[in-house]
Amino acid sequence: MKEIKFFLILMFLGLNIYAQKIDKIEPPYWWVDMNHNQLEIMIYGKDIAKYKPTIANETIQLVEVKNTENDNYLFLTVDLSKATIGNFTIDFARAGKRNNFSYNYELKQRKENSKNRKGFDSSDVIYLITPDRFANADTSNDVVKGLRETKINRKDDYGRHGGDLKGIINHLDYIDEMGFTAIWPTPVLTNDMKNSSYHGYAMTDLYEVDPRFGTLADYINLSKKANEKGIKLIMDQVENHIGSEHWWMKDLPSSNWVNYQKEYLEGNTIITNHRRTTNQDSYASKADSKLMNEGWFVSAMPDLNQKNPLLAKYLIQNSIWWIETLDLGGIRQDTYPYPDKEFMSNWAGAIMAEYPNFSIVGEEWSTNPLLVAYWQKDAENKDGYRSNLTSSMDFPMQKAIVDGLNEDETWGTGLVKIYEGLANDFSYSNPSAIMAFPDNHDMSRIYTQLGEDITKTKMALGYLLALPRISQIYYGTEILISDAAKPGDHGLIRTDFPGGWKDDKINAFTGEGLSKKQVEMQSFLKNVLNYRKNSEAIHSGKTIHFGPEKGVYVLFRVKNDEIVVVILNKNQKEINLDLTRFNEIGLNGKKVKDINTSEEFTWNNSLKLKEKGVLILSTKL
Amino acid sequence: MKEIKFFLILMFLGLNIYAQKIDKIEPPYWWVDMNHNQLEIMIYGKDIAKYKPTIANETIQLVEVKNTENDNYLFLTVDLSKATIGNFTIDFARAGKRNNFSYNYELKQRKENSKNRKGFDSSDVIYLITPDRFANADTSNDVVKGLRETKINRKDDYGRHGGDLKGIINHLDYIDEMGFTAIWPTPVLTNDMKNSSYHGYAMTDLYEVDPRFGTLADYINLSKKANEKGIKLIMDQVENHIGSEHWWMKDLPSSNWVNYQKEYLEGNTIITNHRRTTNQDSYASKADSKLMNEGWFVSAMPDLNQKNPLLAKYLIQNSIWWIETLDLGGIRQDTYPYPDKEFMSNWAGAIMAEYPNFSIVGEEWSTNPLLVAYWQKDAENKDGYRSNLTSSMDFPMQKAIVDGLNEDETWGTGLVKIYEGLANDFSYSNPSAIMAFPDNHDMSRIYTQLGEDITKTKMALGYLLALPRISQIYYGTEILISDAAKPGDHGLIRTDFPGGWKDDKINAFTGEGLSKKQVEMQSFLKNVLNYRKNSEAIHSGKTIHFGPEKGVYVLFRVKNDEIVVVILNKNQKEINLDLTRFNEIGLNGKKVKDINTSEEFTWNNSLKLKEKGVLILSTKL
Repeated sequence: MKEIKFFLILMFLGLNIYAQKIDKIEPPYWWVDMNHNQLEIMIYGKDIAKYKPTIANETIQLVEVKNTENDNYLFLTVDLSKATIGNFTIDFARAGKRNNFSYNYELKQRKENSKNRKGFDSSDVIYLITPDRFANADTSNDVVKGLRETKINRKDDYGRHGGDLKGIINHLDYIDEMGFTAIWPTPVLTNDMKNSSYHGYAMTDLYEVDPRFGTLADYINLSKKANEKGIKLIMDQVENHIGSEHWWMKDLPSSNWVNYQKEYLEGNTIITNHRRTTNQDSYASKADSKLMNEGWFVSAMPDLNQKNPLLAKYLIQNSIWWIETLDLGGIRQDTYPYPDKEFMSNWAGAIMAEYPNFSIVGEEWSTNPLLVAYWQKDAENKDGYRSNLTSSMDFPMQKAIVDGLNEDETWGTGLVKIYEGLANDFSYSNPSAIMAFPDNHDMSRIYTQLGEDITKTKMALGYLLALPRISQIYYGTEILISDAAKPGDHGLIRTDFPGGWKDDKINAFTGEGLSKKQVEMQSFLKNVLNYRKNSEAIHSGKTIHFGPEKGVYVLFRVKNDEIVVVILNKNQKEINLDLTRFNEIGLNGKKVKDINTSEEFTWNNSLKLKEKGVLILSTKL
Repeated sequence: MKEIKFFLILMFLGLNIYAQKIDKIEPPYWWVDMNHNQLEIMIYGKDIAKYKPTIANETIQLVEVKNTENDNYLFLTVDLSKATIGNFTIDFARAGKRNNFSYNYELKQRKENSKNRKGFDSSDVIYLITPDRFANADTSNDVVKGLRETKINRKDDYGRHGGDLKGIINHLDYIDEMGFTAIWPTPVLTNDMKNSSYHGYAMTDLYEVDPRFGTLADYINLSKKANEKGIKLIMDQVENHIGSEHWWMKDLPSSNWVNYQKEYLEGNTIITNHRRTTNQDSYASKADSKLMNEGWFVSAMPDLNQKNPLLAKYLIQNSIWWIETLDLGGIRQDTYPYPDKEFMSNWAGAIMAEYPNFSIVGEEWSTNPLLVAYWQKDAENKDGYRSNLTSSMDFPMQKAIVDGLNEDETWGTGLVKIYEGLANDFSYSNPSAIMAFPDNHDMSRIYTQLGEDITKTKMALGYLLALPRISQIYYGTEILISDAAKPGDHGLIRTDFPGGWKDDKINAFTGEGLSKKQVEMQSFLKNVLNYRKNSEAIHSGKTIHFGPEKGVYVLFRVKNDEIVVVILNKNQKEINLDLTRFNEIGLNGKKVKDINTSEEFTWNNSLKLKEKGVLILSTKL
């Protein structure tokens, strides 16, 4: 009793005596009325496993307490199914010792209608942003004391440049006006790595915003401000790996927390073979499959062992925690085929059970539609694998568009690649829930891939944005950012967005200093995006396309009275396009409008195409 | 009565009075105890539709008589479910006229166990032969009077060269000794075309053997002689089109017998767009789909309208007639995606209902595994299409092997293409029932595709023949026939097999005059084929492969005690292959034999690979 009194006094004085016992408690808080109500709480502190935790609360049941080989960890499972909003106390007692203590764990109220939050879908166009390279609104957090990377250097493509969450918040108007409806910033959680920390994929704390990007409050504010404009916030998460400077790595919870952990501790890092097909291939050797899923992505990224049930639950909860905390409109999941695939099914399944209308897009970098299809929800895979991933990424279409535009027109090359690429949709469980993109943060800029040809770039984007797909555009595409100097160089791809830094001479947000071509591209994209925003035909219309003929490929999207026509024309010289071939669409005699020039004309027997390019027509006048 | 007596007298005298009435009756005979026992008999003769046919036979029921717009055709449907072996009489009477007559239609007894005939499967290697170019055993039929192509000319790649069925019969020993277990001669039915008739795909009579290839008796004899050696005969059939000189074209049965018939009769041939993906593509325009399936393959090949039920039944019966007549072990179906696909499903379905263990391989020339998969039986296609085709052709694997061997080894090129190509098997309903091949009669010779490199050619064949597939090899591959002079030229691809003509200085059957390299290749292939013939591991073993590493790709086939190892090595210089990576196979400490050199050694920790090439090892000593 004396001790408790003393403890209460200390508490009252604001001294966290338990802080000496508990270094981390994760998730830091939870909510009531969640589907996920069997919460696993990870407690980390010196010799914490030597304490016996109890919960004296009628509405909360302590279901299970698990230790690992490492006495500094305790895993509590609590049943919250009858819990009410507020704090509950976890008491920690050590047999025959003093220093017993308590922890007040908070249970919050959920945001109204949180369960039914809507994810992104084919009505969305996502603006992909590398936060370090978009806009630096707060120079005070450019360098944060105590973190391993000690400087910013805008001249170093792989150094930090200072962009932050406030930088994105400040430019939501621009993003909105351009016509984007969602943003996907690459990861902004702490990456306390010695170098290359800017990219964010080597997380060293899964519950902390990197102070160089801002605070948790900033992140929440970004979501709030974006939502107010009807812009969804998508979080980039990584289940496969962490950064080698993650705090776990200094004191690993168990001998199987990380794959090839023993080898790592012996100074021998085992790298994945990247043979992603082993996930599907019924002939794959066990050795290849194991190395694929358990080998490390790179030596700076320890590969998490999601087969460890404690870690598995930790990761699932972490994802849900961020959705609820940030009021997310989607998750982008990195390196989807690398973690244990059964875990990934459970992970996505748990999220979708919590938020049935949510969206998750997983990265499978493969141009093989069989693999893209395999990972999507409702795919009827022969091996029995059932994925819960709503959306996979359309790398096959990305390649088809680039090849199709770059190649000469012959029987088997050129536009036919795009046409046949789209035809593959017959094999997807839900093609319109797949995410298409002209490029991303890991590949050469589309403008570079298309030989810095603005006409081809417009063709790529005009077509892509009319597809039955979720679209994603990387920041800077609108002003023709190029990495031609070192094609494919990651640091260069992620060039600073002009205008994002105080002294930038060029400002793409205002248009100041942009070249004529850049203005042309920005305006083109703005037109198309803003048309798309309200186009039912593009969001959910019927798709009909006609095989390329004489260098012209025509795609129609049709919903009720709205017909959208995309004409990709490769002829440099003027040609007459015979429109009678398209009679089944029912456009004859109807007025159509060029959504870029606003020119109107009546669709009749033929159409003069003046030069190579993309023409987007609509019956909406 | 008087007339009948007169008729019988004439019959007795051997005069076919009905010959004046009936020019064609097809099928010319049928069998009892068939599953297909509702027989449609096509009768062609001047004004035949003006006669009323009757059948006065208790066991045969005349179910239906159909006329078309053309009075020269009659279609009788007879129910043979209770029929017995022998002839039955069809009486033809014309109201108020003389010249009534009768026809004796024959019903044969089926070959014993015909229903359960076995088609080809993954235990088979098929020798594909262009009969005009393989061996000329009978020079008397080189030119046949009355046919449109009036000469043979071995110097003309597109002319007839004189090869015939007897030529194949005479060399069955060679084919057998080489280790082939099935032959697929390209079509030998009459192609009475003015030129290029040698290839056989422009049939002008679907019930007649081209006399330049021999007689029906020769064809039956080929099957019999082949079967005696355990070699299956596969017939090459074409449902999509006929030759423009087919007798139908002079007097078409109806206005919709041939697609775009009206246009053709007006002198305007409509050619297909060859957009084969329209068969699967849910976005394909109606216009494209129609043109794909109804346009003519080439202007010399009228496109049959299989939606016409009379024609549909005619075609199905024709196929069954040949199976039963020739005692076939399989059908190869040309241009599979071009006819009406519902018909093709019914066609294959009818055959498989008649012969449940039969095999049919369809030609879909696409390197897209999605399309190969679509056409195969048991594919669960989302559009509900159910195919009855047991086997499709592995054009994707053909390309993967050639690319994989020709490309330099990098992360995404070289052997990995082959490895990932095979990994796609996970998507097929029955991969081991797919037919793989290094080349065929329509594509450049494999030796040419591989830059006339014998090492690469052995690698291609060694790998291909170990796959869980039906294999097909084009005649002459064993002696490195090349079309390098004009790569891809159809006439040149189909070069005469040396030794097939009387005065040939080189004789590949005996080995006389072959170059050292040719002998080497022939002997290599003979070894591999003869090993494969009795290899349960290759026929039906488990497949395990290991992702290429350092230019080496290793595939295992395992069944019970038999383990077959195929090592593809691209290193020019000697290397040591670490065998511990393959421990899961369980080969350690076991004796293995090189099936080509017969060298034996114990599988242990490492293996010295002396030079680039393929190594095929087996635990069968």
